[in-house]
Amino acid sequence: MSTTNHAQRTAAAAARERIAGYRHRFDARFEAYFDSLAGHLDTPPLSRFTPRCLHLLRDLSLRGGKRLRVALLYEAARLVTDEEPPGLEEAALSIELLQTHGLVHDDIIDDSPVRRGGPSTYYAYRREFPGEPRTALGLAVLAGDLAAFLSMQVLLEAGAPAALKQAMLEVQLRAGAETVAGQITDLERDFEPLPSEDLLHTVCEYKTTRYSILAPLRLGLLAAGEDLAAHDERLRRYATLAGISGQMRDDYLDLFGDEHTTGKSPGSDIRSGRRSYAVRAVLAAATSPERAVLESALGDPGCTDATIDRIRGIARDHGVDDELRTAVRRYAEDAAAEASSWRPHWQPEAVSFFEGLPLWNAQRTK
Amino acid sequence: MSTTNHAQRTAAAAARERIAGYRHRFDARFEAYFDSLAGHLDTPPLSRFTPRCLHLLRDLSLRGGKRLRVALLYEAARLVTDEEPPGLEEAALSIELLQTHGLVHDDIIDDSPVRRGGPSTYYAYRREFPGEPRTALGLAVLAGDLAAFLSMQVLLEAGAPAALKQAMLEVQLRAGAETVAGQITDLERDFEPLPSEDLLHTVCEYKTTRYSILAPLRLGLLAAGEDLAAHDERLRRYATLAGISGQMRDDYLDLFGDEHTTGKSPGSDIRSGRRSYAVRAVLAAATSPERAVLESALGDPGCTDATIDRIRGIARDHGVDDELRTAVRRYAEDAAAEASSWRPHWQPEAVSFFEGLPLWNAQRTK
Repeated sequence: MSTTNHAQRTAAAAARERIAGYRHRFDARFEAYFDSLAGHLDTPPLSRFTPRCLHLLRDLSLRGGKRLRVALLYEAARLVTDEEPPGLEEAALSIELLQTHGLVHDDIIDDSPVRRGGPSTYYAYRREFPGEPRTALGLAVLAGDLAAFLSMQVLLEAGAPAALKQAMLEVQLRAGAETVAGQITDLERDFEPLPSEDLLHTVCEYKTTRYSILAPLRLGLLAAGEDLAAHDERLRRYATLAGISGQMRDDYLDLFGDEHTTGKSPGSDIRSGRRSYAVRAVLAAATSPERAVLESALGDPGCTDATIDRIRGIARDHGVDDELRTAVRRYAEDAAAEASSWRPHWQPEAVSFFEGLPLWNAQRTK
Repeated sequence: MSTTNHAQRTAAAAARERIAGYRHRFDARFEAYFDSLAGHLDTPPLSRFTPRCLHLLRDLSLRGGKRLRVALLYEAARLVTDEEPPGLEEAALSIELLQTHGLVHDDIIDDSPVRRGGPSTYYAYRREFPGEPRTALGLAVLAGDLAAFLSMQVLLEAGAPAALKQAMLEVQLRAGAETVAGQITDLERDFEPLPSEDLLHTVCEYKTTRYSILAPLRLGLLAAGEDLAAHDERLRRYATLAGISGQMRDDYLDLFGDEHTTGKSPGSDIRSGRRSYAVRAVLAAATSPERAVLESALGDPGCTDATIDRIRGIARDHGVDDELRTAVRRYAEDAAAEASSWRPHWQPEAVSFFEGLPLWNAQRTK
């Protein structure tokens, strides 16, 4: 038992080191991409607003967080090969540019002033055009559009065979379209007084899993020369299970997380009216007067910390915290079991990475 | 002379017939595309908002106008071949889907309620969510994003060689990115008290010409198997000249056009604060008190018809109408001359089309 734990800890430490390495190398590469962009993007010679837009996209893109999507991509290639195959670098850029596109437009949709510890692109523009809200909105819409086109264009620049580039474009364009459908369904969700858990799974699958987990897995295997059709069902199962577990953990932490650890004050989902897994579970379990407390807090940005505390108490009274932790764990274990079944096909070290990731994620406290 | 005129009239009539034929066939094809979309786009099973979004995109796309871009595409292929080459149909769909993307986001940026004789997508959503302006805005942003991804995805579905699909994607992704840069510069233009004519040319080139003229030309020739690099300079010269002439004619008609013919009340550029070629020319020519009249009308949606009349009078006093008509004609003739020089390379009937188009366009009264 303690040998297993020791082996697991060693694997986890090695994986964390690889993740940090990917991030480090990717961030340098991403910066170089933006440095070179002015050279190969044809922009209007007389415009000052266009370079400013590129600067804001660069700024948001380089405030990048953990780059877990990039790690998933690189480890997916490592399932097959220890070499870095052609096209992988451009796939990583594409993934993160598509993410930038999504963030810029998301922050318009959610009217969010802050993103990744800095101003959202929308609010950066609002600050630059204080008396011109429509100009700020327009420029933010356009900035997000530009990132979307760049995210696809970069794949064409790969020094890789045409068939691979085309397959990668297919993956990313599907991911882009399906993510939009997921965001639309996300807006729809919050019009449901009590959305079904199935609807929440659907939102999670389309809005997050497809572009954040499934697409990186597909792109990594494609670049490594793997036949995708033969394995796509495995990737889908893994992505769906890991995606739900990860989203549930986010939603759990938003209500039950420790403010000092997460760095965010709890209850943001309630204040923004987001019917998360946690919010849904409380709505489903609460008595009618308790539900009224939550319902009047939902979507009220001024909802007090005391009300959030009270809702957290209601949730605990009904065992919602335990229930969620159990579900997070169960989905993570199912994802890990799926990854374990990959052993006959793929290289052990990368398989261990995919096994371990959902389990570490299920324990994360921020 | 009269023989030449007769020949020109016959060529023009034949070209108009072909344009109508392209439009007719394309509209049926576009409808079939949307019919089949539900089958090959993976959308969330429980969502009602997603099919609604696709319906609105379909609705806007099929209210399609003249489809001149499609005609340019088909005639570009006809420069080389009388057969319809593989990939051309998908190129046409891509061009018009990219246009739909642009229109949806443009109408957010300009806050326009009407588009192509019906509600803009943004305002269709505002009407459906009267108390929820942020939801309406979010859904409209997402609808435009979806159209952008679809416009690229459709190229991958062509039954054409991988190298051609990749070259077509390159053209369309560049067109998408450069159009965004043009739209950004368009917003910038209206912060300039008196933008230079060069800036207006730049906006016209990036915002309109690249995706509306140059990309269809490139795509048509690519599909027909032509080596683009050998001819790209010709295409660029033609597109730039024809684009400026067309934009100037639009701007001319917006101030000087006959309301009964154009079907629009004149002065919309002034009311929306757009420093068009016509507005710029008046600002440059007017005396200081006259300029004050125009400046106080610029961007005032409530500006009266009497004020527009007065500005039109000022413009005529300074010969701005003649000056613009002359410039429209000059750019059209230069574009036609460029097309004439294509005769040694390409098929005469299609060359005549490209020769005639800017000249007919220069005479258009709506």
